Amino acid sequence: MKFSIIKKTPNSLARRGLLQLAHGKVQTPAFMPCATGGAVKGISAEELQSLGYELILANTYHLYLRPGEKEIRKLGGLNKFMNWPKPILTDSGGYQVFSLGKNWRALNPRPNYSGEMAFASLVEVNSEGVWFKSHLDGSKHFFSPEKVLAIQNDLGSDIAMVLDECTEFPATFERARESLAMTHHWAKRSREYWQRFKNPRQALFGIIQGSTYKNLREISAKYIASLDFDGLAVGGVSVGEGKTKMYKVMRWLGPWLDKDKPHYLMGVGEPEDIMEAVKRGFDLFDCVLPTRLGRHGTVWVTTNWQKFRRLDLRQAQYRQDKKVIMKDCGCPACSSGYSRAYIGHLVKAKEMLGMRLASLHNLWLINELMKKIRQSI
Amino acid sequence: MKFSIIKKTPNSLARRGLLQLAHGKVQTPAFMPCATGGAVKGISAEELQSLGYELILANTYHLYLRPGEKEIRKLGGLNKFMNWPKPILTDSGGYQVFSLGKNWRALNPRPNYSGEMAFASLVEVNSEGVWFKSHLDGSKHFFSPEKVLAIQNDLGSDIAMVLDECTEFPATFERARESLAMTHHWAKRSREYWQRFKNPRQALFGIIQGSTYKNLREISAKYIASLDFDGLAVGGVSVGEGKTKMYKVMRWLGPWLDKDKPHYLMGVGEPEDIMEAVKRGFDLFDCVLPTRLGRHGTVWVTTNWQKFRRLDLRQAQYRQDKKVIMKDCGCPACSSGYSRAYIGHLVKAKEMLGMRLASLHNLWLINELMKKIRQSI
Repeated sequence: MKFSIIKKTPNSLARRGLLQLAHGKVQTPAFMPCATGGAVKGISAEELQSLGYELILANTYHLYLRPGEKEIRKLGGLNKFMNWPKPILTDSGGYQVFSLGKNWRALNPRPNYSGEMAFASLVEVNSEGVWFKSHLDGSKHFFSPEKVLAIQNDLGSDIAMVLDECTEFPATFERARESLAMTHHWAKRSREYWQRFKNPRQALFGIIQGSTYKNLREISAKYIASLDFDGLAVGGVSVGEGKTKMYKVMRWLGPWLDKDKPHYLMGVGEPEDIMEAVKRGFDLFDCVLPTRLGRHGTVWVTTNWQKFRRLDLRQAQYRQDKKVIMKDCGCPACSSGYSRAYIGHLVKAKEMLGMRLASLHNLWLINELMKKIRQSI
Repeated sequence: MKFSIIKKTPNSLARRGLLQLAHGKVQTPAFMPCATGGAVKGISAEELQSLGYELILANTYHLYLRPGEKEIRKLGGLNKFMNWPKPILTDSGGYQVFSLGKNWRALNPRPNYSGEMAFASLVEVNSEGVWFKSHLDGSKHFFSPEKVLAIQNDLGSDIAMVLDECTEFPATFERARESLAMTHHWAKRSREYWQRFKNPRQALFGIIQGSTYKNLREISAKYIASLDFDGLAVGGVSVGEGKTKMYKVMRWLGPWLDKDKPHYLMGVGEPEDIMEAVKRGFDLFDCVLPTRLGRHGTVWVTTNWQKFRRLDLRQAQYRQDKKVIMKDCGCPACSSGYSRAYIGHLVKAKEMLGMRLASLHNLWLINELMKKIRQSI
C-alpha cells in the first residue's frame, strides 16, 4: 500500500490523497459503501463503478458465517466472488459481534464495572478474544485478533482491520479504560501476527478507541501509532454519543494522527459529519446509511452542498409530487426522471425498485459530495 | 390499435405480426413482463427497454388499491407514473380478485353447483359484478365490468381487458358453464359500455373462458368473436390443469380465433408452453414466472433454445460453481460475469442483488426466445 498526499489546505487539516492498493487507486477523501453480505444492498458492482466508487467495504462477520471465508477463497477471493475489480476494505467483524450481541437476550448476569450485577450479552469477551453466537442459527463462534486476520487474508481484501473491542456507549471512564486495554492488547497481538504472516497484497489498519474521554483517546492514538500500522482508524465515534461529542473526538484526534498515514473514521456517513471530519484530517469513511435510508424511502437532498435535508418519500405530501428527488441531480433515478410520487409509492408497496432508486440516489449524492470535497481541497 | 400480420408459416398457425398502439409498436409474438404494483419486481423501466421489451402488463387490482387510479391519472397516467414510454396492457383485476380471494378464510358456507354445502371465499360474485376484500387492509370493494373499464381508462393503458370470471380448476361441466355465462354477460356489458365511452387511445380485448371443456370453449370463442373486440384473449389455461389439458385447449382454440386479430394467451410463461402456443396462433403472453423464479434463485437455461431446464442456484451443487448462469448468454448478469455461486449465495442471504440478477437473466432469456421465435417465422 502506498499513500500520497496530493494537496493540503492552509486553514484546516483537510488533505487530498491517493491510496494505491493491490486492486487499484483510490482518491481520498473517499466514502465506502457497505457490501454487508457480499453486495451493497440491491446494487451491482457495475452500478457502484459507474456511480464512481473506487473502494467498498465488506463485512468479515457476515462473510465468515455465510458463505464462509474458505468458500470465498476457493472461488478466487472476494473480488472474484463479488465481481468487483477494485479495492475492498474488510472490517474485523468485531463491530457486528458486539452490536448484534447487544440485542440478544442475556444469558448470565455478572458484575459490571460499577460492581453491580448486570446481564451479559451473548458475547463473551476475554483476553484471548470473543465468543459470540451466529445471528443466523445461534451456533457458537470465536474470533481472536489472529483469527480475524486469517479470515481477512482468505477473503483477500486490500485493507484488513484489526479486531477491537467496540466499547458500548455510554461507558464510565473505568469501563472505557478497561475496554481500551483490551483493544490495545488485541492490536499488539494483531501486529505480531502480521509480522509473521504478512500478505504483501493486503494493508493493515489499527483502530483507536477510548470512548468520549480525551486522555483515553490520546493514550490510544499514541499506542496505536507505536505499532506502526499502514493506516489509522478511529472507532466508537458513531455509537449514539451525539454530534457534539462525535465532533469533539474528531477535533482531538485530527492533530494527533500521523500525517503520512490514511485516517479512517469508522461508521460515519451523514453528509455534514463527513464534511466536518474531512476538515479534521480524515480520509476514509463508511456507513450503511445511504442504502439503509434508501430502503425505507428516505433520500438526502441539498441545494448548496453545505446543508443537507432528508425527505421521507412515503409521506403523504409526496403522493402527487411529480418532481424528481432533487433538481439537477445526476443520479440514475433523477436523471431517468422517476418522480418522488412513484418512488414513494413503490417503497410503500414494498417494491424492490423503489428501495433501489432511493439507494442509488443516496449513493450518488455521497460520492458527488466526496468529489466536491476533493475538488475544494 | 392496428394489428398487421407480417409473415405466416405454412406448417402451423404461427404468425409474425406488428401491433401498433397509442404508445408505439410491438413486434409479435411478444411476452409481457408483469409490473404488478407499478414495477416489474426490482427492474427499472430503462432495464426493461434495454432487455428489448416493447409491451408490459400492469395490474389493475393492485394499482386500484394502491396508489389508486385517480392518483395515477392526476400524475399523468400510468406511463408517466412508471416512467415507461412504451405500450402497457392492463388486466381487468378479475384474476387477482378471484385468486387472492381463494386463499382467504371462508365467510359463509353456501351450496355449490353439486348441491353440496361449500365454503364461499371472501369473493362474492353476482351478475352485477364482484365484491372482494382488499388484501392490504381487508376493506370491501366492488368491481363491475363497467368499473374496471373506467379504472383502466384512468390508468391510460394502451390495451384494456374486460372483466371475466376466472373459473376455478377443477370445475364440473355445470359449474364451468354457469361461470362462462357470467363471463359472457360481463363481456356483453363491457362491449356496451365501451361503445358509449370509447377511448380512442385504448384497445379493448375480450376474454374466452370455458375451462377444459371443448364445447364450452367453442361456444365462448364464437360468442366473444361476435362482440367484435380489438383482440381476443384466452383465460383459464394456466390455472393448474397441467400441460396436457393446457395444450389441448390451445389446439382447439387456435383455429377458431379470428385470424385478423391479436391472440393473447393469459398467464402462460414457461418457454416450452410459449413455443407450443405460438404454433397454435397465439401472439401475446404474460407471466410472473421470470421474476418470481428469479426472486427464489431459480433460472432457466438452454443450449438449443428448444428444451429449457431450471437451475435452483441455492442448491449445494452450485456453491463452488464459478460459471455464469448460462454459457454465451447476453443477459446483464451473465455478460458481467456474475457466478452461479455468487448469485446462489446472495439469494440465500436474502440480498436483493441476487434476486435481481436471476430475474434479469430470466427476463432476458424469455425476450431472446421471443426474438428467436419471431425470426423463425
